[in-house]
Amino acid sequence: MKLTVLGYGAVGRAVAEQAGDRGHSVVAIADSRGAIIDEDGIDLGTVADRKDRDQAVGERPVEAALTADYDVLIEATPTTLDDAEPGFSHVETALQRDRHVVLANKGPVAERYDDLQELVAASAGEVRFEATVGGAIPAIATIEGVDPANVTSVRGVLNGTANFVLTRMAAEGLGYDHVLAEAQDLGVAETDPSFDVDGIDAALKCAIIANQLRDGGVSLADVEVGGIRDIPGSALEVAAEADRTIRLVGEVTADTVRVGPRLVPADGALAVDGTLNVVQLQTTTAGRLTLTGRGAGGPETASAVLTDVDRLPPHTG
Amino acid sequence: MKLTVLGYGAVGRAVAEQAGDRGHSVVAIADSRGAIIDEDGIDLGTVADRKDRDQAVGERPVEAALTADYDVLIEATPTTLDDAEPGFSHVETALQRDRHVVLANKGPVAERYDDLQELVAASAGEVRFEATVGGAIPAIATIEGVDPANVTSVRGVLNGTANFVLTRMAAEGLGYDHVLAEAQDLGVAETDPSFDVDGIDAALKCAIIANQLRDGGVSLADVEVGGIRDIPGSALEVAAEADRTIRLVGEVTADTVRVGPRLVPADGALAVDGTLNVVQLQTTTAGRLTLTGRGAGGPETASAVLTDVDRLPPHTG
Repeated sequence: MKLTVLGYGAVGRAVAEQAGDRGHSVVAIADSRGAIIDEDGIDLGTVADRKDRDQAVGERPVEAALTADYDVLIEATPTTLDDAEPGFSHVETALQRDRHVVLANKGPVAERYDDLQELVAASAGEVRFEATVGGAIPAIATIEGVDPANVTSVRGVLNGTANFVLTRMAAEGLGYDHVLAEAQDLGVAETDPSFDVDGIDAALKCAIIANQLRDGGVSLADVEVGGIRDIPGSALEVAAEADRTIRLVGEVTADTVRVGPRLVPADGALAVDGTLNVVQLQTTTAGRLTLTGRGAGGPETASAVLTDVDRLPPHTG
Repeated sequence: MKLTVLGYGAVGRAVAEQAGDRGHSVVAIADSRGAIIDEDGIDLGTVADRKDRDQAVGERPVEAALTADYDVLIEATPTTLDDAEPGFSHVETALQRDRHVVLANKGPVAERYDDLQELVAASAGEVRFEATVGGAIPAIATIEGVDPANVTSVRGVLNGTANFVLTRMAAEGLGYDHVLAEAQDLGVAETDPSFDVDGIDAALKCAIIANQLRDGGVSLADVEVGGIRDIPGSALEVAAEADRTIRLVGEVTADTVRVGPRLVPADGALAVDGTLNVVQLQTTTAGRLTLTGRGAGGPETASAVLTDVDRLPPHTG
């Protein structure tokens, strides 16, 4: 299929790099400063050079990428809250043109799921969003496969940065501030870590899962959110003495959507280490399914994006 | 879609029971003794009563189910080796009629994958086989999603009976014969347990995974197979002292397809307990993905069958 990639951070770049091997061509790429379009397929070396030199992938206006001749729009611009703009408008333009959309940007499905479904209903295009939850872990496809009606609850560790901090605190007996600084040095945590350590990122993923299970109606404002900033090292020590540990766990049930630090068995499925993520589905027909893997990272998230591309029906627009 | 279900054991029965909830109708059911056909949808209560009374689901010849007006043939008759008959011929008939096929029967994909692909190439129908590996675990779909070309190896615990025996031996310090008898009492092991404890069932699943990764060329004869009969309880005790345990592990790499007892870390992903299965993919693009769940059971396997049905394109025959 012909792909337009919006956003040229780690995910967008990896999508462009992997697309050829999976039989797709990239006909347009845009970042916030400009776009490049080539219907014969973009030369990625040229784009990388230009991005490094000019901070923009190309000289065309960003809108030109949105109206290029593509089958699938890959929306990989940064996640934004509330109105989820400008990502939402990008998706809207593609759907109005009867193009498919694959999201890496969480905003449109976490904050405006119902608006999005309205656009889908009026379009020949479809929207998929595996990459928005758990990176390479096939959480969304597995829920889809079992059928959301058969999934009674979902629990998971959905933020690798917070999990890295908790894992290191427990393993080394260090305090939050010390480990956070270390994570920032390693590039595992951002300079402003609040999105991760305060549970917002995991909460967005829970909102997305809840929307999938309930067919909409949920946004970040509906999620009960707690983070890990205030967890003292002593709490992890006390937990360890009882063969438990603390993880930032997201939970979605029929009447609950919440994220917060929880005591979990130290050798249990939720006690994943480091930056790993885990998603655990409780189902009526398929028992309990536990999926573990890398929850972030450019190549891993790009792999999920391209899995979605392969699951789309041929472009009908 | 309109389904014909061949085989009315635990899996076939559960497929018929779950189909309606997932928006499908069952228009024909056959077991080895007879068939029932109703294009308006079969009344399952009647079938269950007749099966209990007459040992057959219906009075029509089995062939009539194969030539009924359906979109998808669900092949859930018992797995057979070598020529994989009569399952293979059932699949052949459906594909020649341009119908889709969903397999729970491992024979056609483990023993005759290349013959099957030839039939698929000449048909408007497609074949899917998620239910043949790991029951409810989405192993095949996840490999498909990542793209087989990006999967460098697959390891897993693929037989719940053998795993139950090893888990109980290790946990209770009991010998193989004692635990096997217990498993037979519980219905976890068959009267003749060789298919499970000698590694044949796991080897068939490895052959299927190898065929998916290599696009064919593999059958049971190509798998190096070992079982668990000769493992003394003392081996599990020695393993436990080193924080290890023994699991019957299947492995598929670029040049290896084998099943045998292996030493694994006691708290590692492969050390699943009881009848659980686990499939671990090593990939170039998505890191390592670990999928754990129930590897057998009527409802769980039926869930995988219906996931496959939902992933088929509309019937084009």
